[in-house]
Amino acid sequence: MTVADTATTRTPSAAASRPGGSLPAAVAAYFFGGAGREETLRANEAAWQRLHLLPRVLRTPAHISTQIQLLDRTWPTPWLAAPMAHLRLAHPHAETGLALASATQGAGMVLSTQATTPLEDVARAVQGEPGRGPLWFQLYPYGTRAQWQQLAQRAADAGYEALVLTVDAPVQWPQTRARAAGFALPTDWPQPNLPAPAPQGTLQSVLAAAPRWEDVAWLRANAPLPLLLKGVLHPDDARTAVDEGLCDGLIVSNHGGRVLDGLPATAAALPAIVAAVRDRVPVLVDGGLRSALDVVRALAMGARGVLIGRPLIAALADGGAQAVASLWRQWRDELGALLALCGVEQPGELHPSLLQSA
Amino acid sequence: MTVADTATTRTPSAAASRPGGSLPAAVAAYFFGGAGREETLRANEAAWQRLHLLPRVLRTPAHISTQIQLLDRTWPTPWLAAPMAHLRLAHPHAETGLALASATQGAGMVLSTQATTPLEDVARAVQGEPGRGPLWFQLYPYGTRAQWQQLAQRAADAGYEALVLTVDAPVQWPQTRARAAGFALPTDWPQPNLPAPAPQGTLQSVLAAAPRWEDVAWLRANAPLPLLLKGVLHPDDARTAVDEGLCDGLIVSNHGGRVLDGLPATAAALPAIVAAVRDRVPVLVDGGLRSALDVVRALAMGARGVLIGRPLIAALADGGAQAVASLWRQWRDELGALLALCGVEQPGELHPSLLQSA
Amino acid sequence: MTVADTATTRTPSAAASRPGGSLPAAVAAYFFGGAGREETLRANEAAWQRLHLLPRVLRTPAHISTQIQLLDRTWPTPWLAAPMAHLRLAHPHAETGLALASATQGAGMVLSTQATTPLEDVARAVQGEPGRGPLWFQLYPYGTRAQWQQLAQRAADAGYEALVLTVDAPVQWPQTRARAAGFALPTDWPQPNLPAPAPQGTLQSVLAAAPRWEDVAWLRANAPLPLLLKGVLHPDDARTAVDEGLCDGLIVSNHGGRVLDGLPATAAALPAIVAAVRDRVPVLVDGGLRSALDVVRALAMGARGVLIGRPLIAALADGGAQAVASLWRQWRDELGALLALCGVEQPGELHPSLLQSA
Amino acid sequence: MTVADTATTRTPSAAASRPGGSLPAAVAAYFFGGAGREETLRANEAAWQRLHLLPRVLRTPAHISTQIQLLDRTWPTPWLAAPMAHLRLAHPHAETGLALASATQGAGMVLSTQATTPLEDVARAVQGEPGRGPLWFQLYPYGTRAQWQQLAQRAADAGYEALVLTVDAPVQWPQTRARAAGFALPTDWPQPNLPAPAPQGTLQSVLAAAPRWEDVAWLRANAPLPLLLKGVLHPDDARTAVDEGLCDGLIVSNHGGRVLDGLPATAAALPAIVAAVRDRVPVLVDGGLRSALDVVRALAMGARGVLIGRPLIAALADGGAQAVASLWRQWRDELGALLALCGVEQPGELHPSLLQSA
Repeated sequence: MTVADTATTRTPSAAASRPGGSLPAAVAAYFFGGAGREETLRANEAAWQRLHLLPRVLRTPAHISTQIQLLDRTWPTPWLAAPMAHLRLAHPHAETGLALASATQGAGMVLSTQATTPLEDVARAVQGEPGRGPLWFQLYPYGTRAQWQQLAQRAADAGYEALVLTVDAPVQWPQTRARAAGFALPTDWPQPNLPAPAPQGTLQSVLAAAPRWEDVAWLRANAPLPLLLKGVLHPDDARTAVDEGLCDGLIVSNHGGRVLDGLPATAAALPAIVAAVRDRVPVLVDGGLRSALDVVRALAMGARGVLIGRPLIAALADGGAQAVASLWRQWRDELGALLALCGVEQPGELHPSLLQSA
Repeated sequence: MTVADTATTRTPSAAASRPGGSLPAAVAAYFFGGAGREETLRANEAAWQRLHLLPRVLRTPAHISTQIQLLDRTWPTPWLAAPMAHLRLAHPHAETGLALASATQGAGMVLSTQATTPLEDVARAVQGEPGRGPLWFQLYPYGTRAQWQQLAQRAADAGYEALVLTVDAPVQWPQTRARAAGFALPTDWPQPNLPAPAPQGTLQSVLAAAPRWEDVAWLRANAPLPLLLKGVLHPDDARTAVDEGLCDGLIVSNHGGRVLDGLPATAAALPAIVAAVRDRVPVLVDGGLRSALDVVRALAMGARGVLIGRPLIAALADGGAQAVASLWRQWRDELGALLALCGVEQPGELHPSLLQSA
Repeated sequence: MTVADTATTRTPSAAASRPGGSLPAAVAAYFFGGAGREETLRANEAAWQRLHLLPRVLRTPAHISTQIQLLDRTWPTPWLAAPMAHLRLAHPHAETGLALASATQGAGMVLSTQATTPLEDVARAVQGEPGRGPLWFQLYPYGTRAQWQQLAQRAADAGYEALVLTVDAPVQWPQTRARAAGFALPTDWPQPNLPAPAPQGTLQSVLAAAPRWEDVAWLRANAPLPLLLKGVLHPDDARTAVDEGLCDGLIVSNHGGRVLDGLPATAAALPAIVAAVRDRVPVLVDGGLRSALDVVRALAMGARGVLIGRPLIAALADGGAQAVASLWRQWRDELGALLALCGVEQPGELHPSLLQSA
Repeated sequence: MTVADTATTRTPSAAASRPGGSLPAAVAAYFFGGAGREETLRANEAAWQRLHLLPRVLRTPAHISTQIQLLDRTWPTPWLAAPMAHLRLAHPHAETGLALASATQGAGMVLSTQATTPLEDVARAVQGEPGRGPLWFQLYPYGTRAQWQQLAQRAADAGYEALVLTVDAPVQWPQTRARAAGFALPTDWPQPNLPAPAPQGTLQSVLAAAPRWEDVAWLRANAPLPLLLKGVLHPDDARTAVDEGLCDGLIVSNHGGRVLDGLPATAAALPAIVAAVRDRVPVLVDGGLRSALDVVRALAMGARGVLIGRPLIAALADGGAQAVASLWRQWRDELGALLALCGVEQPGELHPSLLQSA
């Protein structure tokens, strides 16, 4: 069963009022579902909500800025669109629409290897935008080192400013909801940025193809762009990466609960990673962030930036690029107000004393 | 859409049996709703219920008094009506009805800047009542220092005994339920005590207008009344206020969950504030208190008084001033019985050893 | 509205399958409801369930006995029927039926001051039973010291072996469910053991009549029976009672959640009391015990005996004395099996290392 | 009422889509229900889910093996079918079908004393399978030592490799759900491996027949097979067994919540047992394990192997031996993938640093 087949089973009008509710059921299951019993998916959202903010009073700064510093540059906001596959399923605006809407609102974007638009087209749409956020390219380490290097070079040539290497998905896990809904990609689905097909066959052959720390070292030495590792949850891995100088940044992620169930919420994993890294490289986080308030929680815990996924898919699905721009605009306004209530001028000044855990 | 418009959509009879259930849906949403996902609103109530009382036996005092000492005077009860805006929406008796009913039952009142009745009228209704509680005036720091001072003088002239400066709402947050219900004030709505319109326009201009510690210092030096700060949650702010002698009292409050969601319950924030203040000024608390038992919990944790909001709105809406008086009377009876069960003669003797947290 | 009035509104057949479900709604509300929001009522049951048993293996004793030692005598089981008022509302067998059924199954009984049967009749029904449990009389300290003494003498003369002084109810609290259901006693309701009417009138007059430690000292010196205090939750009160030699036993109780809501579960209060008493007098407990397993939990925590209430009312209501006997028989069988699984010969050997709290 | 009687009340089609949903209601109640309020039954499942995995990245082993070492041999997987009584009620394939399906997928099997198939037949079905798992025989210590020894010899002769002595069920507890559903075995039900009928009669006679540590010592000295004890929860019992050299392995179990309610989840009991045993004998665990992920959690906590029960009954009931084989195949694939995500080559390398408790 392909998406084309399932696209006709649209959910009834009640569902349409939920974010992303206008999508066909199988596509919604793919985008909004998770692995296994979806415990991790739910835990991600719930964990942020358990962190309570202790605002400061009578010290509202005269001037508020949502700017952050990341990889030696200043950016208008602390957020980037997370790398998300197959956005054309959500809306014809797809990756280009998401990128442009984000750029106009100062948000960054991490383009997925599995994007349905050539990376050059996306970069072109964004580069004219003076107030845009970071433009990064996410790399699935499929194929050979030479293929990775080639793709990294292509991203650098197109204007991307960093590579995000996804390290948490050497093997995939069944996604219960998507499978139950009969989700499948059409056979002629565009994947213009894939360096090579995802490893398939026996577990042993998939394992043989999985990247290792020496591959990261090689890529960092040979790629023309700074390198962030996405998908780190264990503090020992964070320590290895930073102690041995193998990355320019870390993204704490459990892949949005899509790869494996039973993982800790990223809010629960973040503190030990921040402690292990000791500010030697920036730590970002994704997973379950559903509002500017959640972003403030993450930044107060020590994240230097965040990646946002499903809220953007929902907006894109329901209203295309305009809805994405509208969401970012609202979050930016709310972030400003939240900074004021915390008595800080910019996101980088948020710190743990502003939080009281429940 | 204005209240006049929404006033016709009254909820059906089942809802009418809930407190405040007789109000039009949009008005009920305004009074009983909160900011964001309403997590803080719910947490406020739940946190008191987690505190268990350990009563004492065989030491019932021969005489019980519900009196407390506050700002160098003795008052009949430990509670005041919290400052609440736009009470005319709840019942034609409005602020005057609430004030009079409270005064007859020994309860105090903090009149809101956003009251729909001139502050002088409210004061006049109360002053003849010999057994009344404190009469305070709440000040939103809108406009210029001169305007604050002028309003403070007006309150002092009318007989108010203290100013309550609300410091936790320099920027407002959308109230989900009220917005969804289409709540809006009529354009000719009476606001006879507002020193100036609330700051509007860009976030930067709102921020520029926000009060700061130096404004508090100025107001305290120039106002003719003692000054309490309402809306403190961070112990460092409490410490600043008291160390630097900037107030005569503190009110721990998260604005009833109306300004910003994701804040700690006031019961969770209170202990650190009490510890920081070390009895140098009285600490009061509001938020989620729904019974005399909850008040005993708050006093046992170290609060010297409490402010009560939504239960009074519900009573006022359902039965006007008579219902308010009836609620206060019941609470006072219950407080007396609770003091007896705790083996203390008056509220000021309640202390933490009477609590066992769950 | 009296019980006679409400007795016609019997609950439908579905409810009848619940324990006590055959009672008129108002009577069921009176027996099974609690004070306030009924938090304490629910907490009592839930707290036992959070205590997990760690059974022992391969050390099953050859002989199991459910006997305990209490007040220098040996009794067949560790449980007594708790003092319960107005049992005639539940079944015509009333207190005599409960006493006889309990006696035949080795269970004890604490007859309530508010029993509907003369204490002498109850004692007579029991005394012929060789394998019966303790027979105690509960005393509400209403009226004068002389009246207490007179009633105590009457109990001693009739054959009661101890007095249980209820100390946790100097003031009563409204019982939400019973009030909502319109519960009221008929005016000619029999109360043949009441020393004097319960204090009424103003709170001050009720307080003046409340018993104090010096009354306990007087009663202990002048009563012809050992004295237990029922309703202790605060460890400081337990310490006072034992340090000053004012009682022969303590019963940890929150009055089944009927007097005041917001109290800790008795399972939560028990450990601190046991620690304070250090085995100088026996500590018993009631509240929320719903099975022999719960009793084992209580005994393992250090209780020397337990009082059982609502399960007996339900049995009495549904099947009279026979149903009570059947319940006790089942509990006794289960207690034997549980002792075997814990590897102990008798209840007195249960100890905290057999529990793992959740 | 016998199973034959209840077999006609099949659950409707909605229920049939649940695992095991095709069984008659009384049989499903017997297999899937538990003792008392079924708290232990539920706690078993929930406790595993609270343990979160911290996967490792960039260290995927080149080769993954699901093999473990147990009792001096190497086996293909870390799991065995738990001893389960009366499997013929679930499907005509019964124990032979379960054994064969397990053997083809590298899983072991512990045949129940209460199996409906002669132990020799089950052994014969399995022995030709080269890649099979362990074949153990579970012994209920009914009857005399001579009878145990005789049965143990029969098992050894048939090719079983170890004895599993169940020590946690000297007395049985009522199973609420099965009783309510009217479950009963037909009178002519086959029990070809029972050494003697289960002890019956008075509690005292049942207790007299219960096995003790000296019986274990005798059995270990006289049985021709290694001996594991199943049903240990208290660390002191584990210490006794290992300190005194009375077993070759321990199985932490609460009998799937079937014997007694109110026990800790096995996931909660496991750590103290592992600590007490200090790797002197292998510790296995059962109860509530519902996926390969749960097995990884158990192994990371220090278990050397696991026993699986109800998921296999459900599979057997719904699809016979083929469904069992399919379940095991899926779990084995998932286990391989999970080991890769944990960065370990085989189950024995899993350890507690891979877990973050919630």
